[in-house]
Amino acid sequence: MDETFKSLVNALLKTSVTDQSFESMTTREKQIHQLLRHRKCPLDGWDESAIELLVNRLALMDSNNFVHNYGLGEREARFASPLVARRHYRLGHGIGRSGDICELQPKAIGSSLLNVLTNSLLLDVIQSVGVANTRACFVVPMATGMSLVLCLLTIRQSRPNAKFVIWPRIDQKSCFKCILTAGFTPVIIDNKILDNNSLETDVEAIEEKIKELGNENIVCILSTTSCFAPRNADNLEIISKLCLQQSIPHLVNNAYGIQSSKCMHLLETSSRVGRIDAFVQSTDKNFMVPVGGSIIAGFDTHFINEISSTYAGRGSSTPSLDLLITLLHLGINGYKTLLKERKDNYNYLKEQMKIIANKFNANVIENKSNQISIAMTLNMFSNSSIKETELGSMLFKRSISGARVVAIDGKTKTIGKYEFKNWGSHTNSYNDSYITAAAAIETQVKKDVSDVYNIYTTQAFYVQIPTDALSKSLAPID
Amino acid sequence: MDETFKSLVNALLKTSVTDQSFESMTTREKQIHQLLRHRKCPLDGWDESAIELLVNRLALMDSNNFVHNYGLGEREARFASPLVARRHYRLGHGIGRSGDICELQPKAIGSSLLNVLTNSLLLDVIQSVGVANTRACFVVPMATGMSLVLCLLTIRQSRPNAKFVIWPRIDQKSCFKCILTAGFTPVIIDNKILDNNSLETDVEAIEEKIKELGNENIVCILSTTSCFAPRNADNLEIISKLCLQQSIPHLVNNAYGIQSSKCMHLLETSSRVGRIDAFVQSTDKNFMVPVGGSIIAGFDTHFINEISSTYAGRGSSTPSLDLLITLLHLGINGYKTLLKERKDNYNYLKEQMKIIANKFNANVIENKSNQISIAMTLNMFSNSSIKETELGSMLFKRSISGARVVAIDGKTKTIGKYEFKNWGSHTNSYNDSYITAAAAIETQVKKDVSDVYNIYTTQAFYVQIPTDALSKSLAPID
Amino acid sequence: MDETFKSLVNALLKTSVTDQSFESMTTREKQIHQLLRHRKCPLDGWDESAIELLVNRLALMDSNNFVHNYGLGEREARFASPLVARRHYRLGHGIGRSGDICELQPKAIGSSLLNVLTNSLLLDVIQSVGVANTRACFVVPMATGMSLVLCLLTIRQSRPNAKFVIWPRIDQKSCFKCILTAGFTPVIIDNKILDNNSLETDVEAIEEKIKELGNENIVCILSTTSCFAPRNADNLEIISKLCLQQSIPHLVNNAYGIQSSKCMHLLETSSRVGRIDAFVQSTDKNFMVPVGGSIIAGFDTHFINEISSTYAGRGSSTPSLDLLITLLHLGINGYKTLLKERKDNYNYLKEQMKIIANKFNANVIENKSNQISIAMTLNMFSNSSIKETELGSMLFKRSISGARVVAIDGKTKTIGKYEFKNWGSHTNSYNDSYITAAAAIETQVKKDVSDVYNIYTTQAFYVQIPTDALSKSLAPID
Amino acid sequence: MDETFKSLVNALLKTSVTDQSFESMTTREKQIHQLLRHRKCPLDGWDESAIELLVNRLALMDSNNFVHNYGLGEREARFASPLVARRHYRLGHGIGRSGDICELQPKAIGSSLLNVLTNSLLLDVIQSVGVANTRACFVVPMATGMSLVLCLLTIRQSRPNAKFVIWPRIDQKSCFKCILTAGFTPVIIDNKILDNNSLETDVEAIEEKIKELGNENIVCILSTTSCFAPRNADNLEIISKLCLQQSIPHLVNNAYGIQSSKCMHLLETSSRVGRIDAFVQSTDKNFMVPVGGSIIAGFDTHFINEISSTYAGRGSSTPSLDLLITLLHLGINGYKTLLKERKDNYNYLKEQMKIIANKFNANVIENKSNQISIAMTLNMFSNSSIKETELGSMLFKRSISGARVVAIDGKTKTIGKYEFKNWGSHTNSYNDSYITAAAAIETQVKKDVSDVYNIYTTQAFYVQIPTDALSKSLAPID
Repeated sequence: MDETFKSLVNALLKTSVTDQSFESMTTREKQIHQLLRHRKCPLDGWDESAIELLVNRLALMDSNNFVHNYGLGEREARFASPLVARRHYRLGHGIGRSGDICELQPKAIGSSLLNVLTNSLLLDVIQSVGVANTRACFVVPMATGMSLVLCLLTIRQSRPNAKFVIWPRIDQKSCFKCILTAGFTPVIIDNKILDNNSLETDVEAIEEKIKELGNENIVCILSTTSCFAPRNADNLEIISKLCLQQSIPHLVNNAYGIQSSKCMHLLETSSRVGRIDAFVQSTDKNFMVPVGGSIIAGFDTHFINEISSTYAGRGSSTPSLDLLITLLHLGINGYKTLLKERKDNYNYLKEQMKIIANKFNANVIENKSNQISIAMTLNMFSNSSIKETELGSMLFKRSISGARVVAIDGKTKTIGKYEFKNWGSHTNSYNDSYITAAAAIETQVKKDVSDVYNIYTTQAFYVQIPTDALSKSLAPID
Repeated sequence: MDETFKSLVNALLKTSVTDQSFESMTTREKQIHQLLRHRKCPLDGWDESAIELLVNRLALMDSNNFVHNYGLGEREARFASPLVARRHYRLGHGIGRSGDICELQPKAIGSSLLNVLTNSLLLDVIQSVGVANTRACFVVPMATGMSLVLCLLTIRQSRPNAKFVIWPRIDQKSCFKCILTAGFTPVIIDNKILDNNSLETDVEAIEEKIKELGNENIVCILSTTSCFAPRNADNLEIISKLCLQQSIPHLVNNAYGIQSSKCMHLLETSSRVGRIDAFVQSTDKNFMVPVGGSIIAGFDTHFINEISSTYAGRGSSTPSLDLLITLLHLGINGYKTLLKERKDNYNYLKEQMKIIANKFNANVIENKSNQISIAMTLNMFSNSSIKETELGSMLFKRSISGARVVAIDGKTKTIGKYEFKNWGSHTNSYNDSYITAAAAIETQVKKDVSDVYNIYTTQAFYVQIPTDALSKSLAPID
Repeated sequence: MDETFKSLVNALLKTSVTDQSFESMTTREKQIHQLLRHRKCPLDGWDESAIELLVNRLALMDSNNFVHNYGLGEREARFASPLVARRHYRLGHGIGRSGDICELQPKAIGSSLLNVLTNSLLLDVIQSVGVANTRACFVVPMATGMSLVLCLLTIRQSRPNAKFVIWPRIDQKSCFKCILTAGFTPVIIDNKILDNNSLETDVEAIEEKIKELGNENIVCILSTTSCFAPRNADNLEIISKLCLQQSIPHLVNNAYGIQSSKCMHLLETSSRVGRIDAFVQSTDKNFMVPVGGSIIAGFDTHFINEISSTYAGRGSSTPSLDLLITLLHLGINGYKTLLKERKDNYNYLKEQMKIIANKFNANVIENKSNQISIAMTLNMFSNSSIKETELGSMLFKRSISGARVVAIDGKTKTIGKYEFKNWGSHTNSYNDSYITAAAAIETQVKKDVSDVYNIYTTQAFYVQIPTDALSKSLAPID
Repeated sequence: MDETFKSLVNALLKTSVTDQSFESMTTREKQIHQLLRHRKCPLDGWDESAIELLVNRLALMDSNNFVHNYGLGEREARFASPLVARRHYRLGHGIGRSGDICELQPKAIGSSLLNVLTNSLLLDVIQSVGVANTRACFVVPMATGMSLVLCLLTIRQSRPNAKFVIWPRIDQKSCFKCILTAGFTPVIIDNKILDNNSLETDVEAIEEKIKELGNENIVCILSTTSCFAPRNADNLEIISKLCLQQSIPHLVNNAYGIQSSKCMHLLETSSRVGRIDAFVQSTDKNFMVPVGGSIIAGFDTHFINEISSTYAGRGSSTPSLDLLITLLHLGINGYKTLLKERKDNYNYLKEQMKIIANKFNANVIENKSNQISIAMTLNMFSNSSIKETELGSMLFKRSISGARVVAIDGKTKTIGKYEFKNWGSHTNSYNDSYITAAAAIETQVKKDVSDVYNIYTTQAFYVQIPTDALSKSLAPID
């Protein structure tokens, strides 16, 4: 606490009952000191006063907010609109320099500090919720797909002649597109269908492909953890061991896996027995901030730094700021509570889906290493005049978003020059159409799932389908 | 206007003096209709009430802000922190889909509309301030450097065997790095020094290189308009003609060129006589929004669409929202007024620098096609014990940011495997050290430049340098 | 929903998946319609999007926010500071006209609507949580004390010769001062001490005074419900009956009584058997908004209107806006939940205090008609070298605010020309010193009370006092 | 600057280019120190960063924003709605204590500081813009009318037997109502019509009344400065002298007079030669903040303190906060610039009105001591089928607010038991109907007046009236 300020206040108010006020302000200063000193996500969340105290201070440290500043450059973080200035807390310089997205900007000390702090807190969080072995991470102000492109482009620099990316099929468009965008040739490994109808990495096929192509021609294996059921997370341990043995880089798409202890556990154990060069995750899906950022993390600081210095130019500080605010708001304890709730929600959702499935002789597919998404077969439609595909839009009209109907109809989708049969199902040859739902972080399961499944779906499935009247029954209630 | 609302208000207030209120609200609705109908930047800026009316409405159209919504997906635009939700007006879905950054998101109609509107308004602005021939443009939520990477990666898809990017040297790191990041081989073309000591594209050297490498092996020519003096904008017309003749793609880095009628004119005329595939510009430098976005524009809608569909994944809607707010705030007239002021400022700044230069037998270098940045030689330091390089930090300590000292000391800088002599000067062999200053949009020249140059610099240059006392004189005043 | 807007959006996005968006927007419009139509506090709280939609719309209806407005008056709701404009949602006209705080302002239809709505919703809330018989109420942008002054000044107009205000003693300064400020002579009725040491209205003394002074000379009886223990709420039923019989106006200070079903019940039943002209309550204490407003309510619309038309001039719309936002945020159900929690908290707090009291042979005083504040005697200090009065500041230093120590030391306090013995205790002759604590709405009892009483107080009382080491023990812990 | 913070930042960023940042922050701290030390309105306005730094800090000093606080009282500044908390910067305690609106609240040091600072800055402003002799002032969170009531009630305490308030007629309802509300008997002094048709105080009538009633029976003279033309400010000097001689208190309603150097000059000179007990002004009309506050100022600190201690209870801190923000935003220089512009606007408006008047043989009335409001006679309507009264609503429909038509039709208005002939014209017997317009602070005269008078009015007056087609011509244009 600033002694001059104190004594001026006391003199002005002619009182000394100000001790408590000053003490509280000192406590807030100490919170900031502690944050700067340890760069750990605080155990308990901060109140909004404390968060804004910090963020406003960071803004004041950038040159565009200096009391006196004469800007004669082409980039001085000017704002034309006060609304824009305000929503960015007057932070305008972004993060990084042309050399490196993690570099310090002399003109923007506050933004630079923001960048360092956010990355440090995230490292702490990733280590705390499962991947203790992580050595470095940083926020990239681009979505997951483009961050995977960045990782691939970084690998190219050390493997200029490699062309092939081995890719256990995962039917999410940007996961595949990132390979094409980076200019490489994808080698698609179809998944195996297990007895319980879940899908698993075909490790043998990978091994064979490596032999066939020659490991020096392979850019990397791009594996996936979080995904839609009934696909499991890839068999990360075995792939990692393979990569270690064969000296092939290994990139993991952990898009929304931070929220799942299963995914995090796979990363941690695999990093101990094999090779993972980097794992990439979305900020919005794991930390409930707007779309636009991702986190590249890894077990080797040097390689992670190489990626950050491959990014050409400055970047938006918005994802970093959103994350900093969110992490300070939640604290580690708050975040862990959300993770715990998510797990409970997953169990609850699965139970509910099983109840419905039982009514129709449908199945909820068991997924050992996918603890977020749940698939239920849609056998009941097989003799119905209603198409499975209509179900998705019916649900959407009932304000149920995120449920995904996968109709196994043998159709083909083309991405670039590549064709995929039964796109959406992660394999050419699945048997049953199905619907998926996810218990992602902050899904209001107790509220949403029960509303959705009990009120709408149960009614729809149970009563109407036998009489082919689903569409009618689902007409607006009011 | 909603008649039910009107009659309820009148019934409640027992009055009919409400006509003016309803009329004003109808006028605001009409503003929005007009925007949606014509997708032009309004002539006159909107007030903040109108801007927030629109933005809040966009937010209400996204599914996360529906009155009832059951989100069972892994990505539902949830917010953990109310501070984050608020600063984004509760817009969380970002823009685009995994397939294409310009695609519509059914879950996020408001964000999709935001995206379409911003891109349309920008097209209108670009056409209005000089490049009437432009056919398409879109905002990419990445900095200019990464957007150039994206353009290069897009070109690769149609020229898979081309390796070389011909690059007239421009000493801004990310301009060069983007070639390396994209995995290509840069072919550096040094600039010619004209008689007046300004730098110009060495067109002959380019022609020679094309012959040497073979046009089918060339990815593109990457030329530059806006840059630090004494480099001129590249000779865009000739390069464009060359590209047309030789069927070589042509990418233009127009980083902060929208603000300069010179740069815009070059693009327009070159597009009429030659080939330009895309031109890329920064949002922050041209439109005074925070760092983080760029605009890719071009004369062929098909190619611009290809670039947008090369982007893998969704993106942040922050740059689009900042731009939409800013354009509505300024209006075309407001923006043109700023451009006009910039031009005046440029002239004023140049005059001031000439006055100083005259005092020292230094020179302000004439730059015909660079009307933003101004270079003044620093001959006066040649016999001084003070190094030119100290001047930069002296100015920074006096809160003058953006002025750039380039010391011609023969030193070499390495980027990737490439070495650059006298990095910063755009050529290996410039004669004089110099200082640059820019009259960028919204530079407060009448205030800043006069303060800076009259109070500090003049004093410093005039009085102190002869007596070698610069460092002392510039010591903190108070 | 505006059809033009819909069709423009659909045309622009080339889609019809917009139905859900429009439906949600229509639902929000209907919420507003319903509010205007029924003027009831919604059962369930609105989300912030809906609240801001309404408030922003109200602002747009005021002439200062018209698209075109030419203000040639001396009062046009101009804003000099954008920060001020923003925090008031650009509402500047205040409420009421010089004639009447409830009158409509033609220049400010939105603010007028705000005023009507808030008053209507409050009436609904007051009726719903206990005083169903209420006929009218309005927000006054002045604190409770000044609103009591306003009521008294209104009564003067119909009883120009009356001078005396009969006032059962309640030791809160502004309750007494309002009589002096209004220019009347207070007639202080001391309270009776019951066997259980709680305090009760001395009805006989009141009756006697009426006889003595003559009812035509009495302005009114000013009674009190919510107060600090061990004072009970006044015996409202008997006083009301007396006022009816004697044709004496009756004003009730119900400062923080809306939160207590006990106080509300007293008002309701008394209004049925006797006379209550108006009851006045604080907005901040009952509805958790900033200090600055109060609510004047009554059972006769005509008299309440007279009070509102006695207010001279316009008033701030801030209290009304804060209340509107808060009521929409909570909804009736949300508010009732808080009231329920408060009751639970009261019981919990009382239990905890009894546990402590038992340890010291102190007493928690039973208060039949005071269910907010709780008093515990401080006998344990009688043989201690520590003074009871030090306890208050000790607690404050431990961040316990609101606990109040009343030391019975026979001292006298003077307000105006009036002397009060043992000020704070509501009577001249109480026996024991005591401490009070309140379980007011939103007190975090489960958290605060347990922390406070278990950690600090218990420890302090139990361990230290016998050894006279209280002050030492309470020294800062860290 | 906090050294720990500095060294932690430097350690973390591994740099020392942070000097400029810390220096700027120190400068901002010094701004705050200076404000606390001198309590003067800064010469130049602060930027929003500095204002929010201060306001946020004040909020942190209130106990409801302590890091740890256990509130066991009935009033702890809790917030139920985050929107409400945010718009008040989490300041909830209001200002003052039940004893005195200027007293310090131990629970709310920040709010107390806010209160002291605002009052100090206002005193500085009032002294600086004309009434150097002022000794004390404070903000009351009530409109001007109620503040006049408060002043009258305060005077009653020292003159318990006085009943009459001498009131030179000013036709603004709350100016009259305040006397009735305070419970006094108004003695109405009609104004004299001068040769130039302006109105002036009838000083002789006042003197006579004093003799008739006896000075000991007179509460005060309530005079007025700012008012609608053609009334002049009251003859303050003579009234003040009279009050001094006769020992009669003198209250001045200076509602929007701070903005007029004329009014301020009258107060200053009169205070030097005679008696003024207090002068009261509106905050919204003089400082462009929302309606809701007023400033009571005077030349005797003791009496001003008496008024503040007559206010019963706490008050809203909103007017004080709005004023503090506004004064810091403008600075003395900014405020004086606005005053200067107002004077220019007044001259411009008058000129324009004269041009119109000339066209119709109407008159703009000269008002020596009213330099805000301007009256123009409406003779042109005398032979027209259109009534003058319609003109007002015609103008309002054209979005011209604040112009006031006074039709001399001999009608009578009743306020309380009092009747006023030709209400609005300040006298029973004015000859001509007229229209008034005001050049108040921040009127956009160059824009508004020219639009209004040239486009609409001129057209209306000039073209249409002779042909009796005014109503038609003014029909909506589009």
